[in-house]
Amino acid sequence: MIHQGFEDLVDFLSKLPSIGRKTALRLTFFLLENRKLAGQLSEALRKAFENIQKCSRCRNFTDGSVCSICSNTSRENLLCIVENPADLRSIEDTGLFRGRYFVLHGLLAPLDGVGPGKLGIDLLKRRLETENIQEVILALDSTADGDATSSYLARMMEPFGVTVTRLARGLPVGAAVEFADGRTLAQAFEGRSRI
Amino acid sequence: MIHQGFEDLVDFLSKLPSIGRKTALRLTFFLLENRKLAGQLSEALRKAFENIQKCSRCRNFTDGSVCSICSNTSRENLLCIVENPADLRSIEDTGLFRGRYFVLHGLLAPLDGVGPGKLGIDLLKRRLETENIQEVILALDSTADGDATSSYLARMMEPFGVTVTRLARGLPVGAAVEFADGRTLAQAFEGRSRI
Repeated sequence: MIHQGFEDLVDFLSKLPSIGRKTALRLTFFLLENRKLAGQLSEALRKAFENIQKCSRCRNFTDGSVCSICSNTSRENLLCIVENPADLRSIEDTGLFRGRYFVLHGLLAPLDGVGPGKLGIDLLKRRLETENIQEVILALDSTADGDATSSYLARMMEPFGVTVTRLARGLPVGAAVEFADGRTLAQAFEGRSRI
Repeated sequence: MIHQGFEDLVDFLSKLPSIGRKTALRLTFFLLENRKLAGQLSEALRKAFENIQKCSRCRNFTDGSVCSICSNTSRENLLCIVENPADLRSIEDTGLFRGRYFVLHGLLAPLDGVGPGKLGIDLLKRRLETENIQEVILALDSTADGDATSSYLARMMEPFGVTVTRLARGLPVGAAVEFADGRTLAQAFEGRSRI
């Protein structure tokens, strides 16, 4: 053992997704030889999430109380529902969608105790009641959980009389929105179908 | 864009080996949802390398001036030469080698300006002169650079009259010591051959 602090860093790094012990060890040795980067990373981790909170309208992460998309009055009155902020960013990066968003921060998973309450459904209902939304686009993963959540949301929104669509199956089945390339996402947006 | 600090963290994470922009973004979103871990990681990065220096005998990283292996009087008088501290750790983890080490912190690479001076060869010579070393084991990667460095070291050590061996080719050719599994390493130790 080199040093307690060294071992602690290996431990914490290996708690990150897709980073096992061997990789954590390799990253730690790399940082040991690149101490300037280690310092920058430490500082960035301390500051990255200062003042970050959930937008009071769409639940995306933001540093104000309302995010820049929600406060942009030139966005269209389409509402795209996504699982998480990474999905939102992938869609924004295509530059094709100029509407608004709602971030669930998860998918329905009754066995894991994730019900509608955790997904901000009450806030979503308030928006459907008060905003003039032309269409709701469900942009969830094409997985069992994603489909179940889409079905639940479509049923839940029926009384509001809003058009509900979901992304076309341009997405390969089983794939996550976050990792789709821009062109696949664009096709999926184009071919979205009524639910 | 969510936040400048958020983007900075993505930038710094993507400077780590084997972490591209997509992975950095995913790690950042993960840390955003796991802020306690982000804080622990920041703290660990700040403390991990405090007081870490190179051992004055073997050049492994240590928090004293002489590392725990060098100051352990019960280790055998065999000297294992490794490229870096990660290799040393892989060998220690097998529990089979009870001798001492010397860490080069690199391999000879004349085109990149890495000559014997950067590998601590003077210190190695002093040890060969002053210590009663029975055998030097070259445990370098079985790559072109590793082989070139082994040949250089074997020639350099000839005047000292010490037995020089290198690890048996139990290692798959082209593989790095750091990533070999314990059993392969053990076989390689067992079948080490005179050079």
